[in-house]
Amino acid sequence: MQPDHSPPSPLYARVRASFDQQTVMAAIGASLRSVAPGAVEIELPYRADLCQQDGFLHAGIVTTIVDSACGYAAYTLMPDGARVLSVEFKINFLAPAIGDRFIARGTVARAGRTVTVCTGEVTAIAGESERVVALMQATMLAVFT
Amino acid sequence: MQPDHSPPSPLYARVRASFDQQTVMAAIGASLRSVAPGAVEIELPYRADLCQQDGFLHAGIVTTIVDSACGYAAYTLMPDGARVLSVEFKINFLAPAIGDRFIARGTVARAGRTVTVCTGEVTAIAGESERVVALMQATMLAVFT
Amino acid sequence: MQPDHSPPSPLYARVRASFDQQTVMAAIGASLRSVAPGAVEIELPYRADLCQQDGFLHAGIVTTIVDSACGYAAYTLMPDGARVLSVEFKINFLAPAIGDRFIARGTVARAGRTVTVCTGEVTAIAGESERVVALMQATMLAVFT
Amino acid sequence: MQPDHSPPSPLYARVRASFDQQTVMAAIGASLRSVAPGAVEIELPYRADLCQQDGFLHAGIVTTIVDSACGYAAYTLMPDGARVLSVEFKINFLAPAIGDRFIARGTVARAGRTVTVCTGEVTAIAGESERVVALMQATMLAVFT
Repeated sequence: MQPDHSPPSPLYARVRASFDQQTVMAAIGASLRSVAPGAVEIELPYRADLCQQDGFLHAGIVTTIVDSACGYAAYTLMPDGARVLSVEFKINFLAPAIGDRFIARGTVARAGRTVTVCTGEVTAIAGESERVVALMQATMLAVFT
Repeated sequence: MQPDHSPPSPLYARVRASFDQQTVMAAIGASLRSVAPGAVEIELPYRADLCQQDGFLHAGIVTTIVDSACGYAAYTLMPDGARVLSVEFKINFLAPAIGDRFIARGTVARAGRTVTVCTGEVTAIAGESERVVALMQATMLAVFT
Repeated sequence: MQPDHSPPSPLYARVRASFDQQTVMAAIGASLRSVAPGAVEIELPYRADLCQQDGFLHAGIVTTIVDSACGYAAYTLMPDGARVLSVEFKINFLAPAIGDRFIARGTVARAGRTVTVCTGEVTAIAGESERVVALMQATMLAVFT
Repeated sequence: MQPDHSPPSPLYARVRASFDQQTVMAAIGASLRSVAPGAVEIELPYRADLCQQDGFLHAGIVTTIVDSACGYAAYTLMPDGARVLSVEFKINFLAPAIGDRFIARGTVARAGRTVTVCTGEVTAIAGESERVVALMQATMLAVFT
């Protein structure tokens, strides 16, 4: 999602090209919201068919968008030719994932040659109110093949 | 999936009732494979529409099935009337999630009154070969409402 | 360490009483630096006898001070009579733990009745320069006995 | 600690040389108990001066021994000339760390060229009884300099 009518930046285009290859993003209805060096946002409208037993968005779906947001945040700082893979992550769920839509933000905490560490958060938006529902800490790997 | 034609156990029925309410399981095509005290398995066939940019099952989808496997493993040891929620988990990805199908196994490491700790693993099956592709360590909460 | 000569706050006194019972803090030379609602700092001078094989402060010692900082940050928001226990944490090491001294900051991200989620970071200070060397995400439990 | 009077293996000697450089191990009284390919044990007698406020071994000290056990387990499978660093770990505390002594076991789950994933556990031993008090999942990095 572009904030204005200016042409997309090369960085946005690079992330967008990979994002469009993540078939799961279309399957769940997620879109790329913003791309900046070391920071990426992904947005997901609530969907009743992606829930756990209480009608909250399933923890794994919350994880899906923030993992990709962290991965792409890392990717923005990697050299051309690198691929990005999730080594591992840890996520805490702070509140039920209910709302109209969810924004996952990934931010690079430390970029390294092979290993990049990111923090992520997912905010649930319901009308005017916003609430952080999940916090992630993730390790991403640059792979050159 | 029942291993034989005997009627499902009350424990299986209890987990199955909750599993059927997790709408995301039907959305991604996952099924409940086995239920035992402190141990649950969920199975997911590979789907090209749930992948990341390299055609591997997306880390978030791998996470979805093993989070539920861990959550239900915890749930099997909780008293009637309890609901189970994921407090947090951490997952390492050991190998690309490629294969014909994936089996997520959740196992209780320590069951407590409120907090239960589980370990999980996801195995990718391709023909005759099996490979562990992810390891999880998770904290589940019993909620009484 | 008090920033000025005013008497310690009741909150500081409450955390300090528990901190003084943590025998490991005296053993490694750590001190309580600041206490505010939902935020605690612990300081540790570098010691060559608490290192790993390269002369960096051992990851476990870095962990010791930031675990306590997170635990006490959670404790500041718990009711009287509660004890605090670490359920689990995850920590990333961003840079070698070298410097003159280290400051661990724990901050509450979400305070709950039983479960509190904290984030922590450890900064290494060498002369005028500061560098974040570790990031933690922790789950703390209030225990009433 | 050698289980018999045979000379130490080259693998043991290699780990032992690094272990002896970890000054924190002597400071807390930990010893190297066993070394095998992909598996290392470290032992620590209980010490009242390494505790948290309830007299349990501090979570950070429990972490110290199992982090090193995991790191050295990874190290046994790394080529000569590699150094091992902890990228990150996550640890759950299953029971109070009380007992006469503690054994930390680190085991390699997947060894890679740069990244190795380990699982760890810490057992508390009190007389005849044994109890797992902590579970770790760790990511180790091979560094060539």
